[in-house]
Amino acid sequence: MPNRWKCVCAYDGAGFCGWQSQAGGTAVQDVIEARLAGIFGRPIRIHGSGRTDAGVHARGQVFHFDGAWRHGPGRLLAAVRHRLPAGIQIRSIRRVPDTFHARFDASGKVYSYDLFLGDADPFTRPFCWQVSPDLDLAALMRAAAALRGRHDFRAFSAWNGAERGDTVRDLRRLDVARRGRRVRLTFEADGFLYKMVRSMVGALVSVGQGKLPPEKIGALLGSRVRTPAVQTAPPQGLFLQRVFYA
Amino acid sequence: MPNRWKCVCAYDGAGFCGWQSQAGGTAVQDVIEARLAGIFGRPIRIHGSGRTDAGVHARGQVFHFDGAWRHGPGRLLAAVRHRLPAGIQIRSIRRVPDTFHARFDASGKVYSYDLFLGDADPFTRPFCWQVSPDLDLAALMRAAAALRGRHDFRAFSAWNGAERGDTVRDLRRLDVARRGRRVRLTFEADGFLYKMVRSMVGALVSVGQGKLPPEKIGALLGSRVRTPAVQTAPPQGLFLQRVFYA
Repeated sequence: MPNRWKCVCAYDGAGFCGWQSQAGGTAVQDVIEARLAGIFGRPIRIHGSGRTDAGVHARGQVFHFDGAWRHGPGRLLAAVRHRLPAGIQIRSIRRVPDTFHARFDASGKVYSYDLFLGDADPFTRPFCWQVSPDLDLAALMRAAAALRGRHDFRAFSAWNGAERGDTVRDLRRLDVARRGRRVRLTFEADGFLYKMVRSMVGALVSVGQGKLPPEKIGALLGSRVRTPAVQTAPPQGLFLQRVFYA
Repeated sequence: MPNRWKCVCAYDGAGFCGWQSQAGGTAVQDVIEARLAGIFGRPIRIHGSGRTDAGVHARGQVFHFDGAWRHGPGRLLAAVRHRLPAGIQIRSIRRVPDTFHARFDASGKVYSYDLFLGDADPFTRPFCWQVSPDLDLAALMRAAAALRGRHDFRAFSAWNGAERGDTVRDLRRLDVARRGRRVRLTFEADGFLYKMVRSMVGALVSVGQGKLPPEKIGALLGSRVRTPAVQTAPPQGLFLQRVFYA
């Protein structure tokens, strides 16, 4: 019987310094690894589908780990859930083949980003970017069309130019849906570069604010250079919703 | 021109020791009064429709205050909103006659209380009471029927027996609505006794857990005595939704 486990988890990013361990704060990964170490009686390393930055939320982050357990997934789930802080939830856990890898096997991801037009209530504020009600949504939607599809997204990322690597991604979906004063942007791609969603949202909001012409988005994309014209949206509106495995 | 203002506000109760000022914590009232003092250049006392306890949330708490202001309600709203903490939102502000009183003129209130059947996600947990998925909702609903209408609710309150006063209230509405794993109880009455909603929810959940027979609710109500059989539900599921003025 394989000892590899696939877990889906949710977290409120506000209380953590991001997914991955780093100096000067508690990462979601640290908290889950400490819990697993308590259960298995030895250090357990978990492998996420990718990092999320400080303040970014998740409803469907996926990770895997190895651990020998004879009591079935239900009891393992109950054990892992026990005494985790309220900001982290383990949603599901199941055995997978030893060849499964949460990061390398991911075939796609869905992120959402919520804008709020005006003054949000105290229950919505921690999960959106409050922008002016004057935001020109028609212009924002025209600009979004230029981002859809397969492109080199280097201009819309925090990719370090000195690094080598493939910066082409297939943005299969970029939906803009308004409901009342909430505007939800949904992004699906085979993968995302570092800060890619927040860079796209930042640029689209600049278009909606009249600071950037919608036609400029295609030119920026083609330049393959990150410029100050592309602002980075704040983290609290961003949710990692789902990770796909082919 | 009258100088009395009626305000509607929302707050996340988690960050405050309740609506009303007391030793050992910051009350919502303190924060709003401090903001108004900054605007009007003198101490301002605000009068709420009633208190809410530590940890209880509001979407539609109402208060009034007096202050001379010549620049219209829109600019007063902007000034009050400015620099309030994220956990408090002033939703609206308008001039009212000098005879208006947020507490004495209230003709009814609506509270909601959210239960969650099982393990809630990190975004729902701060706003619900997580209970077992086995909760017997049919029994809970039968028990709720006994509470509707005009009764002396002393047995379902933290009313101090030594105090005099009218403890009869008209519970015009008690709805139980399930949506997925969330169960929302909605209460509307001409007024509520201290801890009345949380006492009713506590007793109804005890019925749903099989700890209290549904038929017992009527007898408890008739006894007019608070007993340990009535538990108090935790504060974080409770929202003051609306205050009515005839």
